[in-house]
This record gives sequence, structure tokens and C-alpha cells, in this order.
Amino acid sequence: MQKSDTFTLLSNPSHYVPRLIADGVAYTDLQNIWNDQEITSMEIWCEKWMNLALEYQSYGEEDLNDGFEIAAGENFWRSSLYNHYGQFLLWHNQMLKGEAMNRKVANYKKAAKLFTPPAERIEVSYESTFLPGYLRIPIRSKRPPCVLLLGGLESTKEESYLFENLCLARGLATFTFDGPGQGEVCKDIRARPDFEKAASAILDVLENRSDIDKTRFGIIGRSLGGYYAARSAAHDGRIRACVAWSVFFKFDFWDRMPRGLKDGFLYVSGKNDEDEAKVYYKSFTLEEAAPKIRCPLYILQGRLDVIFPPEHAELLAREVRGETTLDIEERGTHAAQNLAHVVRPRMADWMARKLA
Amino acid sequence: MQKSDTFTLLSNPSHYVPRLIADGVAYTDLQNIWNDQEITSMEIWCEKWMNLALEYQSYGEEDLNDGFEIAAGENFWRSSLYNHYGQFLLWHNQMLKGEAMNRKVANYKKAAKLFTPPAERIEVSYESTFLPGYLRIPIRSKRPPCVLLLGGLESTKEESYLFENLCLARGLATFTFDGPGQGEVCKDIRARPDFEKAASAILDVLENRSDIDKTRFGIIGRSLGGYYAARSAAHDGRIRACVAWSVFFKFDFWDRMPRGLKDGFLYVSGKNDEDEAKVYYKSFTLEEAAPKIRCPLYILQGRLDVIFPPEHAELLAREVRGETTLDIEERGTHAAQNLAHVVRPRMADWMARKLA
Repeated sequence: MQKSDTFTLLSNPSHYVPRLIADGVAYTDLQNIWNDQEITSMEIWCEKWMNLALEYQSYGEEDLNDGFEIAAGENFWRSSLYNHYGQFLLWHNQMLKGEAMNRKVANYKKAAKLFTPPAERIEVSYESTFLPGYLRIPIRSKRPPCVLLLGGLESTKEESYLFENLCLARGLATFTFDGPGQGEVCKDIRARPDFEKAASAILDVLENRSDIDKTRFGIIGRSLGGYYAARSAAHDGRIRACVAWSVFFKFDFWDRMPRGLKDGFLYVSGKNDEDEAKVYYKSFTLEEAAPKIRCPLYILQGRLDVIFPPEHAELLAREVRGETTLDIEERGTHAAQNLAHVVRPRMADWMARKLA
Repeated sequence: MQKSDTFTLLSNPSHYVPRLIADGVAYTDLQNIWNDQEITSMEIWCEKWMNLALEYQSYGEEDLNDGFEIAAGENFWRSSLYNHYGQFLLWHNQMLKGEAMNRKVANYKKAAKLFTPPAERIEVSYESTFLPGYLRIPIRSKRPPCVLLLGGLESTKEESYLFENLCLARGLATFTFDGPGQGEVCKDIRARPDFEKAASAILDVLENRSDIDKTRFGIIGRSLGGYYAARSAAHDGRIRACVAWSVFFKFDFWDRMPRGLKDGFLYVSGKNDEDEAKVYYKSFTLEEAAPKIRCPLYILQGRLDVIFPPEHAELLAREVRGETTLDIEERGTHAAQNLAHVVRPRMADWMARKLA
């Protein structure tokens, strides 16, 4: 069987492995699947992860029986994560993708209650549907600041557990949600250039909570979410600090993207062909928004990023008016995922300091 | 250059990679070093890690300058860890080993103050020297239980940061220390069968602290430390729960060990030749101690362990008198390091429940 282009993309370990590891895939599991000769397509890749996810689901249930609640939570979380990474680049098999997504969501719901601190699921009404998210508040904190965490093209709210932990350890509450084009929301609302409206709808709800401080919101978005975060910071003054964890200034790199990635952008926008999508994504731009960003902004970009050009980060830094930190990691790949262990704690520290 | 036997041992990825990853080595760094064709001996392996460690030390110093204290702590910790893994199997070059160990210790001291919660260095007088250890207490806790964490043959107190975090998240204070034959202590006191005396000396000091509960001590030891933990639980009634994270019942497997591992046992015991060492390690036995273990005991062993026979764990479980949980992981290697993400949270949960 010939490997599809998407699968070829995935077969590039230096691009995906560091991210999957940093977000919680166990090294031995990744190693086993990577070396599995039976995997010759994204479908088989997906099924293998789904099977492994079932094992972790069983571990979680056993742990619950034994009274090991925190261990159970981590196993349900890992089950969710493996279903997620099974389907994350599978754009052409809706049945399989849908089943994996359902299991991802269901296992995360079970895990959320068992986390320390727990994650409270909140569904925020939005247009004809709702935006689902998880709120976590540092243990024994008193009205802490709160950071919105945004995924990107194919990353969703279930992928941020470990990054949430970094924030929580620094006294920050976290709210991680699916917006237009992401996770549970994608079937109802496709990706939109004005993601800031979704972020504002979230803040409308969060600012009425008595257990977080409504004067200290931050936002961190990675990859396509870096663009979303910058847009949100430009349009909503309640956001007091913003991290663009990789970003583009305008969508002028369509032609340079590999096939599999284009498929992803087509999928989340619901466009049927490349020409249509290419025009649509031209509306994804920070040209007007950038000068409106007044809050402190931290931009992290990898010099070796082959998706979002590093020059875009430099351009954004020039266009904003407020305090800006431009961190171009010379050895960093996309979102500097290969340096996750260095850049993630630093971004979390920066945010904690800005919202202190 | 011909690869030495120790280096051949290290070249077996399935044995070491999962452990190094689980204890905090960044995947990308390990990948780079593993693929580095220049590394043809343990000396070069050590120098490569030491160089990488210098980079993390610099990151830590930059972070401190930028006011990112938690990130700085993790970078100093990683610098310590890389110096550690540089020298951990280097038994025949004292100069290089000594330098790497010094850097390990120095960087960990810097990191310890920056951890959340911080680690307080305590030096407990013992014979002609002292046992150095680190006490960490969960944030905002009131007299929590406290677990002693023990390393094994070549693992030392600087290797347990991530496992400490699992304990702390469950409300347990941790005290991780070097005993006879380990880390800073090895130059003064070599490995001894009666490790329990060192553990008791530690408890003598800890039970006078007002910030932990002296009626609720636990102990967790891995690999050779599993033997040490079982001995300690047998001889000191202050220990209320014990995890033997892989264990042997008696030292009857000398002849089956690979050369590199024998070198390690020779080194930590200060014996000059195999015959002498083989006789000496016969005194490392749980035959008399096992029936004296009255506190709850959790035994974790990998069925695929090629170092400590799984039957030893079964034998120990039969010989103890108290409540015993025998967890033989059918797919587990030595200390089930390949299943670290499953077994570590579970052991921590078990301990938290027993000391609750």
C-alpha cells in the first residue's frame, strides 16, 4: 500500500514526535507505534492508537476500583490523548475520525473530575451551539488570575493538560476551550478569522465567577492559536497579557504548505477546494489587529519553522504598540516543540509575572 | 575504537531510554545524543552530556536574569540531571566522573531553592560523614506525612524530582537522600547490606521537625533501593508503609549480570575483584528481614526484568507477615521503567492512601 501524503508528513519524526511527547504521549507507546510495520495509512495509525487508548481506559477503571483516583485520572487522560492523536491528521475518514473524537471527549470528561486540581467542564452558549471548555483553579488559591489556552489547527482542549499544570503551579487558573473550527465545535462552526468573538464570549462568562479575578485575564495560543490569541488581545481589553506561541501575520504561505496540512486547513474551514480555501484564509490577517494590541505580548517562534515563517513573528513585533518580547528560538522548529522543555516553563513564568 | 562492554549495555535503548525519559531527560536531547556517531565510549558519552548540561546551566542563568524563577529551576535541574546521566555508568574514569558529579550536585543545589515547593537541603550526621538529602513539603499543607525516597545502584537523590512531584501532588512530603554507596556519600561510605541504619538516622532527624507528621513515615526505594527500603521497613517501626519498586530477595544472580553492571556493583562496594564482591553481596539478603516487615508493603516487579528475577518478588511476598500487594507487570522491564507512566502514579497513590 502506498503511503498517503498525510502519512508521509506524519512519518517525519522530527516534526511530530517532540510535540506528542511534550503533550503527554508515553515514550514507549510512541516508539512501539512508530516501529509498527503494519501501519501504512492514517486509518491504521488511528486504529492502533484507539486500541492502545482502550488499554489505558481499562487501567483507569482498575485504578478506580483500587481507589487510586489520581492514577485513574491520568489513565483516562492518556486514553483521551491517544484517541486524539489517532485522529488528529485524519481528514478523509469521517466515520473513524468521529468515533475517535467521541472517545477522546468521553475519556477526558472522566479524567477531568480526577485531576488535581479538578477541571470543571463549562459550556458557553455561542450562536446556535456552545463552546465547551475546562476551568481549573489552583488549589487553595484566592481569586487567582486566569489564562485562556487556545489550540490551533488540529489541537484541541484535551491536549493542554500538561501545559495547564505548568500554569497552575505558578498560581494561574486556566480555561482551555474549543472555539470555531476546533474539536467539539468544528461540526457546528468552522474556523473563522474573527476568533476573538469566541474568546470574548468566554470572558463574558468567566468574569462573573467569584473564584477568579476578572481584572486579570491572559491568553496563550499555539500555532494557529497564536494568531487567534493575538486577534483576541487586539479586540478585547479585558486581556491583560498575551502569548503568541508561534504565529503568522497574514496567510501568504498557502502554496508552500504540504498536501496533508492543506487538507487540514480545508477541513476545519469546510471549504471544498484549494482555490476557495486560499481566498478564504486571506481574511486571516493581523494587519489591522496588530496595532490595536496594547497589552504585553510575548511572541515565540522557531527559526526553523517550515510552516509559519519566522519573519512573520518579527513583523508582528514591529507592528504592535505595547510592550513586546520577541523570542525567536534559533534551533526551534514549529512552535519550538523540539524545545518544549525549555520554552514552555518560560512562557508560563512570563504570563504569571505579567498577571501577578 | 571498540565499544566497551558498559557502553554496549548503554546502547540497548529498551533498557535505558524509558528510564531517562521518565526521570526528566528531554526527548530531543536524548535522540540527538543517541544518534551521535562520535560517541564510541562512556567517556565521550559523558562529555557530550556535560556539554549539554552547560547549555541548560546558561538557560537557567538567563531565566534568572529575566525573572523567570521556576523556569530557571527546571533548567538548573536538567543541567544537574544531564551531568548525572553523563557519569552514571562511568566506573573507570574517576577524574571525569568526579567532575560530572560535582556539577550535578552544584546545579541541583541551585535548582532546589527554585522548585515549587522548594527543596531544603539537610545534611544528617552519620558516622564520620553526613547523609545529604532534600526535604520538600506540599504547599500550604499542615504536618503532612513524609516519604523517604531511595535511589539504587547508580541512581542518586538528584534523580527523583519528578517522582517527588507525584508524591507532593498527593499531599505527601518527600525526603530524598544519598545513603551508603550512593552519590555524595559513596566516597566516604560504600554500599552496605544494612542500609536500614542510614534510614533510621534520617528518621531520627525528621521526627523532630514540626512541619511533618512523625507518626506517618513511608519509604519507597527503586531497584537496589527496593532492597534497601524493605530492609528499612523491617528494622524501623516508624515506617508505616513501604514500596519496593523492584527488589531482590538475595543476591544469587551475580554470575548472570553483564560486565558493565558488575563493574557498578564493584565500584559502589569498593571491592577490587569479582570474587571478593560476589562474597560480599551474599550479605545483601532479606532472608531474616522479610518476616519482620509488618507495615503494608507494595512490591512492583517487571516480569521481563533481566536483572532482578521476578521470582524474588514473589518469594518476598510469601515471606512477609503484613499486608502485601504484589504487582508483577507482565510487560514490565527492570523496575517497569518502560511502564513508568502507568506504575509511578499508582505507587504514589498507594502510598498516599496508606499514610492518609
